[in-house]
Amino acid sequence: MKFLILNGPNLDQIGTREQSVYGNENIHDYLKRLKQDYDVEVAFESSEATLVEIILSAQDIDGIVLNAGAYTHTSLAIADAIAAIQVPVVEVHLSNIYARAFYRKTSYIAEKCKGSISGFGLDVYRLALLSLEAISNR
Amino acid sequence: MKFLILNGPNLDQIGTREQSVYGNENIHDYLKRLKQDYDVEVAFESSEATLVEIILSAQDIDGIVLNAGAYTHTSLAIADAIAAIQVPVVEVHLSNIYARAFYRKTSYIAEKCKGSISGFGLDVYRLALLSLEAISNR
Amino acid sequence: MKFLILNGPNLDQIGTREQSVYGNENIHDYLKRLKQDYDVEVAFESSEATLVEIILSAQDIDGIVLNAGAYTHTSLAIADAIAAIQVPVVEVHLSNIYARAFYRKTSYIAEKCKGSISGFGLDVYRLALLSLEAISNR
Amino acid sequence: MKFLILNGPNLDQIGTREQSVYGNENIHDYLKRLKQDYDVEVAFESSEATLVEIILSAQDIDGIVLNAGAYTHTSLAIADAIAAIQVPVVEVHLSNIYARAFYRKTSYIAEKCKGSISGFGLDVYRLALLSLEAISNR
Amino acid sequence: MKFLILNGPNLDQIGTREQSVYGNENIHDYLKRLKQDYDVEVAFESSEATLVEIILSAQDIDGIVLNAGAYTHTSLAIADAIAAIQVPVVEVHLSNIYARAFYRKTSYIAEKCKGSISGFGLDVYRLALLSLEAISNR
Amino acid sequence: MKFLILNGPNLDQIGTREQSVYGNENIHDYLKRLKQDYDVEVAFESSEATLVEIILSAQDIDGIVLNAGAYTHTSLAIADAIAAIQVPVVEVHLSNIYARAFYRKTSYIAEKCKGSISGFGLDVYRLALLSLEAISNR
Amino acid sequence: MKFLILNGPNLDQIGTREQSVYGNENIHDYLKRLKQDYDVEVAFESSEATLVEIILSAQDIDGIVLNAGAYTHTSLAIADAIAAIQVPVVEVHLSNIYARAFYRKTSYIAEKCKGSISGFGLDVYRLALLSLEAISNR
Amino acid sequence: MKFLILNGPNLDQIGTREQSVYGNENIHDYLKRLKQDYDVEVAFESSEATLVEIILSAQDIDGIVLNAGAYTHTSLAIADAIAAIQVPVVEVHLSNIYARAFYRKTSYIAEKCKGSISGFGLDVYRLALLSLEAISNR
Amino acid sequence: MKFLILNGPNLDQIGTREQSVYGNENIHDYLKRLKQDYDVEVAFESSEATLVEIILSAQDIDGIVLNAGAYTHTSLAIADAIAAIQVPVVEVHLSNIYARAFYRKTSYIAEKCKGSISGFGLDVYRLALLSLEAISNR
Amino acid sequence: MKFLILNGPNLDQIGTREQSVYGNENIHDYLKRLKQDYDVEVAFESSEATLVEIILSAQDIDGIVLNAGAYTHTSLAIADAIAAIQVPVVEVHLSNIYARAFYRKTSYIAEKCKGSISGFGLDVYRLALLSLEAISNR
Amino acid sequence: MKFLILNGPNLDQIGTREQSVYGNENIHDYLKRLKQDYDVEVAFESSEATLVEIILSAQDIDGIVLNAGAYTHTSLAIADAIAAIQVPVVEVHLSNIYARAFYRKTSYIAEKCKGSISGFGLDVYRLALLSLEAISNR
Amino acid sequence: MKFLILNGPNLDQIGTREQSVYGNENIHDYLKRLKQDYDVEVAFESSEATLVEIILSAQDIDGIVLNAGAYTHTSLAIADAIAAIQVPVVEVHLSNIYARAFYRKTSYIAEKCKGSISGFGLDVYRLALLSLEAISNR
Repeated sequence: MKFLILNGPNLDQIGTREQSVYGNENIHDYLKRLKQDYDVEVAFESSEATLVEIILSAQDIDGIVLNAGAYTHTSLAIADAIAAIQVPVVEVHLSNIYARAFYRKTSYIAEKCKGSISGFGLDVYRLALLSLEAISNR
Repeated sequence: MKFLILNGPNLDQIGTREQSVYGNENIHDYLKRLKQDYDVEVAFESSEATLVEIILSAQDIDGIVLNAGAYTHTSLAIADAIAAIQVPVVEVHLSNIYARAFYRKTSYIAEKCKGSISGFGLDVYRLALLSLEAISNR
Repeated sequence: MKFLILNGPNLDQIGTREQSVYGNENIHDYLKRLKQDYDVEVAFESSEATLVEIILSAQDIDGIVLNAGAYTHTSLAIADAIAAIQVPVVEVHLSNIYARAFYRKTSYIAEKCKGSISGFGLDVYRLALLSLEAISNR
Repeated sequence: MKFLILNGPNLDQIGTREQSVYGNENIHDYLKRLKQDYDVEVAFESSEATLVEIILSAQDIDGIVLNAGAYTHTSLAIADAIAAIQVPVVEVHLSNIYARAFYRKTSYIAEKCKGSISGFGLDVYRLALLSLEAISNR
Repeated sequence: MKFLILNGPNLDQIGTREQSVYGNENIHDYLKRLKQDYDVEVAFESSEATLVEIILSAQDIDGIVLNAGAYTHTSLAIADAIAAIQVPVVEVHLSNIYARAFYRKTSYIAEKCKGSISGFGLDVYRLALLSLEAISNR
Repeated sequence: MKFLILNGPNLDQIGTREQSVYGNENIHDYLKRLKQDYDVEVAFESSEATLVEIILSAQDIDGIVLNAGAYTHTSLAIADAIAAIQVPVVEVHLSNIYARAFYRKTSYIAEKCKGSISGFGLDVYRLALLSLEAISNR
Repeated sequence: MKFLILNGPNLDQIGTREQSVYGNENIHDYLKRLKQDYDVEVAFESSEATLVEIILSAQDIDGIVLNAGAYTHTSLAIADAIAAIQVPVVEVHLSNIYARAFYRKTSYIAEKCKGSISGFGLDVYRLALLSLEAISNR
Repeated sequence: MKFLILNGPNLDQIGTREQSVYGNENIHDYLKRLKQDYDVEVAFESSEATLVEIILSAQDIDGIVLNAGAYTHTSLAIADAIAAIQVPVVEVHLSNIYARAFYRKTSYIAEKCKGSISGFGLDVYRLALLSLEAISNR
Repeated sequence: MKFLILNGPNLDQIGTREQSVYGNENIHDYLKRLKQDYDVEVAFESSEATLVEIILSAQDIDGIVLNAGAYTHTSLAIADAIAAIQVPVVEVHLSNIYARAFYRKTSYIAEKCKGSISGFGLDVYRLALLSLEAISNR
Repeated sequence: MKFLILNGPNLDQIGTREQSVYGNENIHDYLKRLKQDYDVEVAFESSEATLVEIILSAQDIDGIVLNAGAYTHTSLAIADAIAAIQVPVVEVHLSNIYARAFYRKTSYIAEKCKGSISGFGLDVYRLALLSLEAISNR
Repeated sequence: MKFLILNGPNLDQIGTREQSVYGNENIHDYLKRLKQDYDVEVAFESSEATLVEIILSAQDIDGIVLNAGAYTHTSLAIADAIAAIQVPVVEVHLSNIYARAFYRKTSYIAEKCKGSISGFGLDVYRLALLSLEAISNR
Repeated sequence: MKFLILNGPNLDQIGTREQSVYGNENIHDYLKRLKQDYDVEVAFESSEATLVEIILSAQDIDGIVLNAGAYTHTSLAIADAIAAIQVPVVEVHLSNIYARAFYRKTSYIAEKCKGSISGFGLDVYRLALLSLEAISNR
């Protein structure tokens, strides 16, 4: 099976900056290790438009793990793109979005996704891949 | 007279995907036919910034037909760009935006446009061109 | 094809009063000219009940162009009547309703109509007839 | 005992139109049968003003069954009229108003009525007559 | 000087019904006495449409005293009619509308009127006539 | 036919306490008389969990009359239980819930029930049984 | 009869400053003329506390005309003081408060007053004195 | 490692009732299979109080998987109990809670949990156990 | 005089867990000392239903001190029970509820109680007993 | 120990006016008796600014009992002053603020105080002094 | 050029109290140094009324720097006074008002001022004087 | 010292278009003059993603002056980027954002910035540079 891990703006900083908030494990190191266990492509994109286009052009893969970062709360365009494709998408968040400012509690993306996993730090990526495997086995 | 039809993210999928929602007429075929009757340029852009720049650089044309898609409900930058130019802009939506989720009912763009046409499927483009002709004849 | 143009309260004043807001073209003159091109009946009614009854008794016509005026924002009874009939109804507004007070931004009627056209002055009537023709050709 | 069944706009269509929503039993047939068991007058009125006047002029009757239709959610004038009379009024709705759009969940009329019955289709009329009998026996 | 006192639905009951709320002075007696001092026509109308039409056809008078009753809080059509005419309109309410349910605190009509007088019982009519005289003397 | 009348917290006090609000007819006496006319079981339960379990285990009966008391406004668990069963449920309230504090106007339960009857004092129980008979005769 | 006209902050500027908004008639000249016709004391006070104390110490007068200015929308202390006394208070506003920013539409004071008069410029003072006379004649 | 899977009201019906919504896999069969792979205790409790007490008495276990059902949206008492213990708790939901009525979108419990997993049907239980293992390995 | 101190869910943990929030004085030790000075019974109950029943069955006592914990913000059933009895109830909270999340600021219970004391740690119990003595001496 | 009892606007009227609301015990008599038992200074101030300054200059006392009256709901300046000092402040209200209009339910002051006592009439002053003693004994 | 620095309640404490929040630089020392570079008068006033009067009487100066403190969020009277004068006013805040409680985010005063500067500690005063110089040079 | 002035969409039009709103001074001319006094780089970017990336890559500079234009009110991604860096950021707006439509009053960016300056036209850039100098001198 083949997957895509797609990350939105600012997320390539995880483990480098604001370590007190997001932990000091480097996201690039983590995802490199994950690639040893899964056939997975990884992308970091700051642009809402590029994220939309990557999602729309997804084919021949078994699922997308999407950490849309700040766009989770502001982008209807990404939600529309997810709704337009057949490939299952799982939304992930490293930290608990319910403990943040009220305008960070809304996810436009969630209702278009197969499921949502949040709050376990970088492990949300591995859990999301497991969930995509589970879905495809049904 | 010369016009620009400007489309936002995901709209190039119309007629290809989600046919149960948007009908199975291909938007590219439709617009090709429209070009036979009107001197009209067509653009599809996923990027909010590119849409802003295209609007700001509009000149020597008689009007813009804008289907901003999801950005209708989230982009103040596009609204500002419309307000900055003299060229008349008509907002169109293929389907009735009043029957969707509440955060899809607000249009930041509408109040900066000359008018708004929604709910007639792909025919909104032809109606918008007609309305631009009518405006310029006044 | 045969159509009905149905107008709500105060609209027979267009072109006579408040010309700075609605322009100085007389609505009766405009609609007389429109009748030369289309087989169209025109009615002006102040009463919500009469509007409901006219809509419910519509038959052997190809569409209704409805400018419900102030009732757009307050009448569920008219919305119910539109939902009860098979004849397609197109909602029109002479000016941009999005630039007015917040309680003028809600349209109870919109979600029951085939489509909505606003902001082009008296031309909305001609555009609406064109849109009804387009719908019936589908 | 003598009663009045008073219906608002669009309700004379029940059983004729939108049968998938309201069932295919004709309201006129139903009420004719009800008249065999009760001394009851029936009125269908589209006009808010006429409904107000009928309510205000109610006398020598033992109760009013009021299905105000769309006016339930928009008419303070009818609520005022109910408050002005001594005759008990029971509010009825054929379907469950709580499962509809949010602006259909508010009843201006409810708080002025003796009680409220909704959701049992045309049987709400018979139940309302029974409830008026019960009230008068207290 | 010549005036029109225009009353909405239910108001002809004042002094007859609900005397504990509105006092037991009969509104018809009161207005008859007022007519001895002023050249004033009086109308009671339940219909929103008729009120709109009376307002639109007002001419050769020096002002309208409008007690729109329940329509104060629900009718944009009456507000539009007031905005369309040159004759000054003064809004009156017999009781303090600020001490009632929240949906009775909004007046759609107020912002189109020259002024507003509420809370003095039937005397609001006389005060409104005085205010119209004062306005015309300016 | 066989029915269950299910009452939530505090309701066994009706007629004993707060007589000025709920009347001085004892609910137990009333229901005893009702049992002479109908094959009906009666339960009073303070516990949300027990109410859920009784609803889920309902079988071989023709309907439930549910007066959930305060849980009407706070319990999604009871609403879920009603949705899970086939047996029809009718919601009743002794008094008019629309005349109470705003957080008493919401019913989580209503939209899962066949219908709703409120405001006729203890007679709501008899009316609800009649409504269940009517439903089953359809 | 003896009255007090009590004005809040900024109101002594009327006619001197912002003449385009409030007219160019000087409030002090106006009130001087009013004093020729009525036994009336006039006070201008910027302090909320002083206004409270003047209201509380009101005695041997037949009414207070209160233009609380900006405190209308922010002072519960003044509302409490009005509620504490027997002397009738009439609220006045020179301009239509309904056409201003939303936080200027709320009056904490209105519900404690006998009545409210707004929108007739400086004439509201004379109308308020007339209304106080009318009240005391009842 | 040792875990507790704790379920709230109505959840023991999964797979038996409402199969169109929740699928037809029996929750008891699923959890039995899960027990073959994990040392896990399973409880189904309708009572909010019992759920609180079970959570408070949790000791000598490595984590709780909590599907609080309807209490997710109404119980602060369960949220308080989670906050009081050291054992990590993971919140699960079988279906996407973001696609339901707005009062089902709030989770009082989420902000007290280590993480949240929703939308993958019964697989959320297995994913939650995996996430608890991952947490304890950090 | 004889009193009942009634505590809701999680409160028996005070002084044992979350000492940084609630202090490290054990609630059981504190209440034991209080019993030396007052004739007071103490109960800790997790169940909303049991709390309702204890309140309803209160007799031959001079007052209830109620710390409803999380139910303060969610239970209308407990509020109803307090309203149904004659025994005075005083609401207490150990910490300042105004400094917590917004859904912890609402007390359904407060308006049914004689008074409310919050923010002094365990001393609220002693103060509440003093207040009940003071009330009974009036 | 030495205390200050500080009262806001209108409170010196307690027992003199509006006796049906606040009881007929004179606040001055009550506080005179309280002074026999405690070393306490008493102040009544209508001015928000003076209250701020008294609070800021508090020193060599063991606590302030503050009944801010109407300023409770409108004054951020008093809240800021309380936050600026070390002396503990206890907020008191004679009656239950939860049973009043919604804009009387908010206390800006509460979150800056050590605690809050309301609803026991004039006894709140004595209870507050007891609570200040209890705090200082900790 | 000549300026006035006008400060509201509690601000004379800056640098003396709550140093962890506002820093330990004394505001009086800071402003003394500022006076060496600018012809500036400084006032500290707790009273809303006095602030209003100082603003209204401003003349022969080139600008006012206003730190209204808590009145920023509660005083319409000060906003009215600013609107009444010709002298330019600049609003300043020592700390970022956007990071505080929601009722501290609204500024009634901002929309009447020439501009607004916040978040740089005591330097906002110097920056405001520079901005007033810049304005007058235009 | 070295600074970056970063401008969002549409801002390069200032002084060219909409001169009645933003003045007729050309922003490019203004910034060129500013560069004579300060070591400052200037960028104009329409793309949210590019703005995020420029902010994240900021190093070896003493501060950023950010005029995010329309993104001020819609971009959480830019706010996140500001939070991720150590370089101080000052938010500027040419005009008073408090006098615009309500959805233009919210700044997502403000709470992540050191300070905010608005309303002085193009001079906000120079003031912001001064404020950054002041901050670094502390």
